Amino acid sequence: MRMSKQERQRQLILAFKEDPFLTDEEMAKRCLVSVQTIRLDRMELGIPEYRERIKHMAEGNFDRVRSLSPDEVIGEMIDLQWDRSGISLLEIRQEHVFSRTKIARGHYLFAQANSLAVAIVDAEIALTRSANIRFVRPVHLGERCIAQAKVIEQKSASRLQIQVMTKVSGEIVFQGIFDVYRLEENERT
Amino acid sequence: MRMSKQERQRQLILAFKEDPFLTDEEMAKRCLVSVQTIRLDRMELGIPEYRERIKHMAEGNFDRVRSLSPDEVIGEMIDLQWDRSGISLLEIRQEHVFSRTKIARGHYLFAQANSLAVAIVDAEIALTRSANIRFVRPVHLGERCIAQAKVIEQKSASRLQIQVMTKVSGEIVFQGIFDVYRLEENERT
Repeated sequence: MRMSKQERQRQLILAFKEDPFLTDEEMAKRCLVSVQTIRLDRMELGIPEYRERIKHMAEGNFDRVRSLSPDEVIGEMIDLQWDRSGISLLEIRQEHVFSRTKIARGHYLFAQANSLAVAIVDAEIALTRSANIRFVRPVHLGERCIAQAKVIEQKSASRLQIQVMTKVSGEIVFQGIFDVYRLEENERT
Repeated sequence: MRMSKQERQRQLILAFKEDPFLTDEEMAKRCLVSVQTIRLDRMELGIPEYRERIKHMAEGNFDRVRSLSPDEVIGEMIDLQWDRSGISLLEIRQEHVFSRTKIARGHYLFAQANSLAVAIVDAEIALTRSANIRFVRPVHLGERCIAQAKVIEQKSASRLQIQVMTKVSGEIVFQGIFDVYRLEENERT
């Protein structure tokens, strides 16, 4: 059953707040209305369009990755708070999928999550010690993977436990717990 | 203390049997003798040299990977027994390491292990469901990673639990348990 315009716009505000990576197409499907209707809703509510929202986030004044060179992060960094949390975006392209099935190869999802977990650590050098991961559902060519990492436990000054959850259109596709430790420059071997 | 020649040759036979990827240099270090001594030992014992041993293994009559295109395996397949075991070799090159530390990036070790776990499954399509992994020690530029996978449990016709252990010069650097499932062609979504 279709909801009223008022109810739909209320849901729209909540949905975009919770997931700024939601597209108009996905929102239209959820609300059983046309994409045009969602666009009009957004205009009425003053919610910028997808590309603008991402650009806005990416330009945000977030922390700089210390533990990796920028090109060593797999995916695009969208947000980063040292020792707290981070978000990255990886669009699954031809080079990421199995040739026959067009399903993303697991190690790219792992690489996105792992490099994000390492990237949020406030240290010159950070390494993964262990990880417990789950591929919840296959990811296909063209899908956009939003990985969100947060520190869930600081086991000691040098050991952090980081949870990473990767979603496509709000649906979990990958999750993992990463044990990451930082090394100070003088501890390098 | 140096061991006798007889004892050394006995150890040599055992060591090469256990790890055909052992080099003369590594063996010389272990036995506290020169590389030349090990070479002479090998000749006396009729053990072929490193490159010959690898070539011999790679030419062996092992199973063909079904679940992946050959170029989708990360590393070089050395041995494969469907639904039982497999071995692959990955040499850590410049493109695999962090620019600053020259330590191999975790996702390459993961990719080697994960693609090997998938490769040994006798199916057109096999996917990783979950993994529990541990980076035991950092791997450096130039090191050769030998990953050995074996099926430790067949949970059902379609689910296999696979253990992967990756070693450098006989020392464990990475280990993981992978839960992999196979899909039949008609189950594809």
